[in-house]
Amino acid sequence: MLADLYFGHEDWRVFFICIIVTAFFGGSFVLSNTGQIFEMNARQAFLLTICSWIVISLFAALPFKFSALDMSFTDAFFESMSGITTTGSTVIVGLDNAPPGILLWRAILQWLGGIGIIIMALSVLPFLQVGGMQIFKTELSEDEKALPRTAQLASSIGGIYLFLTFSCVILYSFTGLGKFDAVAHALTTISTGGFSTYDNSLAHFDKPITEFIATLFMLLGGMPFVLYLKAIRGNARPLFKDSQVRFFLSIVAISIITTVTYLVMHQDIKFSEALRRASFNIVSLITGTGFANGDYGQWGGFVVSLFFFLMVIGGCAGSTSCGIKIFRFQVFLAVIVVQIKKLIHPNAVFIEHYNGKPLAKDVPLSVMGFVFMYAFCFALLSIALSFVGLDFLTAMSGAATAISNVGPGLGDIIGPAGTFQPLPDSAKWLLSLGMLLGRLEIMTALVIMHPNFWKN
Amino acid sequence: MLADLYFGHEDWRVFFICIIVTAFFGGSFVLSNTGQIFEMNARQAFLLTICSWIVISLFAALPFKFSALDMSFTDAFFESMSGITTTGSTVIVGLDNAPPGILLWRAILQWLGGIGIIIMALSVLPFLQVGGMQIFKTELSEDEKALPRTAQLASSIGGIYLFLTFSCVILYSFTGLGKFDAVAHALTTISTGGFSTYDNSLAHFDKPITEFIATLFMLLGGMPFVLYLKAIRGNARPLFKDSQVRFFLSIVAISIITTVTYLVMHQDIKFSEALRRASFNIVSLITGTGFANGDYGQWGGFVVSLFFFLMVIGGCAGSTSCGIKIFRFQVFLAVIVVQIKKLIHPNAVFIEHYNGKPLAKDVPLSVMGFVFMYAFCFALLSIALSFVGLDFLTAMSGAATAISNVGPGLGDIIGPAGTFQPLPDSAKWLLSLGMLLGRLEIMTALVIMHPNFWKN
Repeated sequence: MLADLYFGHEDWRVFFICIIVTAFFGGSFVLSNTGQIFEMNARQAFLLTICSWIVISLFAALPFKFSALDMSFTDAFFESMSGITTTGSTVIVGLDNAPPGILLWRAILQWLGGIGIIIMALSVLPFLQVGGMQIFKTELSEDEKALPRTAQLASSIGGIYLFLTFSCVILYSFTGLGKFDAVAHALTTISTGGFSTYDNSLAHFDKPITEFIATLFMLLGGMPFVLYLKAIRGNARPLFKDSQVRFFLSIVAISIITTVTYLVMHQDIKFSEALRRASFNIVSLITGTGFANGDYGQWGGFVVSLFFFLMVIGGCAGSTSCGIKIFRFQVFLAVIVVQIKKLIHPNAVFIEHYNGKPLAKDVPLSVMGFVFMYAFCFALLSIALSFVGLDFLTAMSGAATAISNVGPGLGDIIGPAGTFQPLPDSAKWLLSLGMLLGRLEIMTALVIMHPNFWKN
Repeated sequence: MLADLYFGHEDWRVFFICIIVTAFFGGSFVLSNTGQIFEMNARQAFLLTICSWIVISLFAALPFKFSALDMSFTDAFFESMSGITTTGSTVIVGLDNAPPGILLWRAILQWLGGIGIIIMALSVLPFLQVGGMQIFKTELSEDEKALPRTAQLASSIGGIYLFLTFSCVILYSFTGLGKFDAVAHALTTISTGGFSTYDNSLAHFDKPITEFIATLFMLLGGMPFVLYLKAIRGNARPLFKDSQVRFFLSIVAISIITTVTYLVMHQDIKFSEALRRASFNIVSLITGTGFANGDYGQWGGFVVSLFFFLMVIGGCAGSTSCGIKIFRFQVFLAVIVVQIKKLIHPNAVFIEHYNGKPLAKDVPLSVMGFVFMYAFCFALLSIALSFVGLDFLTAMSGAATAISNVGPGLGDIIGPAGTFQPLPDSAKWLLSLGMLLGRLEIMTALVIMHPNFWKN
């Protein structure tokens, strides 16, 4: 609202009304429950988590629906869900001329979604034991109570998040971005969200230094924030020794090297140009940001295939990024190594390790169950999307980009040079569901579908 | 050789020389080891299994190399590996005019490969504990020794295999196929191999009844042969009560119903025609046979996406078919259900069940490790294939069809209307490796790559 007032756009009225409506509903809930003390159990925590994301998306969709852009309800909800889940897929064509309030609103949604997912990953998921996240429980606290520590953690991590965002704004400004663009892009960079204020994303500026800053902060957004907290408290060692961080950076490095080699050898692109394109886009996809500085669909089959698989890998657990996440691949590798050793020595006993410590017995199955459901939801979503009329590449990459909360897909329609606008409404709803599932780490959402959940 | 002699084709000399060469090498090995008694350990069993498949492929490639078709060594090895692994991808263009000896040789390779994989799955893999196959150990024998029972099992199952093949020959003849075609197609139907004697596969005959017979015997080839053995010994109950068989048939039925609905509604195809096309192709793909009766690439995005995922599902364990296999999905589902129950009741204890019995503790991890390696090899192979120049759809479906031993891929080049001939040699070698990995259930092949395998 303030942005629209500052730039003199009449959409400030829309935001004002939305504030009133949202404050009315929120205030009513607070008032009607005030003075009561709740002890949450696991089931209530699941329900609260799911409902929060849905309700926030609904209320956050109001400005889109009633702004000067005159979006349909489907489009408004899609854009809002894409924002709050830090996906970054957009249905708005003509961002360059969109009202400033809406542009900032999109960026703020991603920024809030980014900090939301860190807090959720640190406080709620480990205690609900979702998808192997219990690994991180002992790292964080000695006691088993989820909620008392949440507020304390949230404020520390929130401080770091704010500091990184400010640094990003300042560095973007140094590279020549206007104040508004610097703020809007900083909000969506550190949250690995990927909304831009221009239709052709960061390619609008076409400056290597801006892309370098973006790459740096996307990487920072894709690493575990709790390690920054430790580093600030005087122990920077975990940040450099953490096996998840090392594995993550190794995958990024290997992908960049092979892609640059391919682009130079097979596509006749200059080395410096190849390095710039490859490093920016690879970090953008693996962290699930989804910024683009060119249409990588045109760089040959290898890039398309590699980028497809990078999308689903995702960043580190405890970061703002998404996808299957690095630590799950590490747990998988640990399981495979133990399996192979067992095949060779059938009577010996081997134990899986992660980050130098033996894994708790239930973690490998928890991780594998998660990845299976991830693959299963991906397959179902692809099939459903192709059923409503999407072609193979659009359906497959659309499902992957939604569940992994990346942003752009592959192909002519939803690729980095296109938007999700031309898709049928049914596809937009399916994709919204996919984004929600991905952000809730799938299992959180599926739990409520089991009959036992509703039994007393 | 006999076929070429009968039809008066001079390629019989090639087969004669190949027989001499192969008999010389085989005879030398037998003679040089005769009279010695071996006690095989797990490591030797792994090596023997892997070497057998490679050596057989090499010697089986000789007739292709030296026949009138004048194939390159790469093509000959690809065709031979595709045959013996019952994949069914072909690099031969102009099957309609190929020498009869070669056509029969391709069919015989698949037939031998089919019985080979059943025996391997029943005798070797469960004892090596590969990918959860240990589930089937107790089903088969009370004692733990692998090899003594192998010969006995092989002869019983071999009898059933022969009987089914003969029945298929006779039924194919009834539908109007010539004797040669009936034999060649029966050999590749029951083995779920998919080589045909015509470039356009079963579409050459264009008879619904022939396709119905093919569908029936592909289904029979995709179910556990040990259940037929039990049925013959007077206990048909397991055949109808087995949870793997039920799950398999349910997936087939659901896929047919949705595809027919889609074809009738969205593609304006008549119901009877849709049913014929859908049932034949779905059974052909899920069992990994790869016969075609039309180019399903033209039936819209839904069919392409659905068929892609059907490819990797595969048939039942202990059948001639391939892919991830039904029982692994069942184990996965069991794990997921237990996980969800645990999330709801964090302090209760739940145990995974399969086929009505509790699962041994090591099975879920074994299964999941397998599926992860399957997905990982698929991803690596897709990326490698696109690196050597294949487009996204060709690379993705080529990797899937090779590792799952299906046959045709998707798209214009390797789809059901094309062949693998136009691919570069590097892609053919990569695909050959993929077929071998898939047929060896991946883990068998990966074991020898671990340094521990070679330590004493």
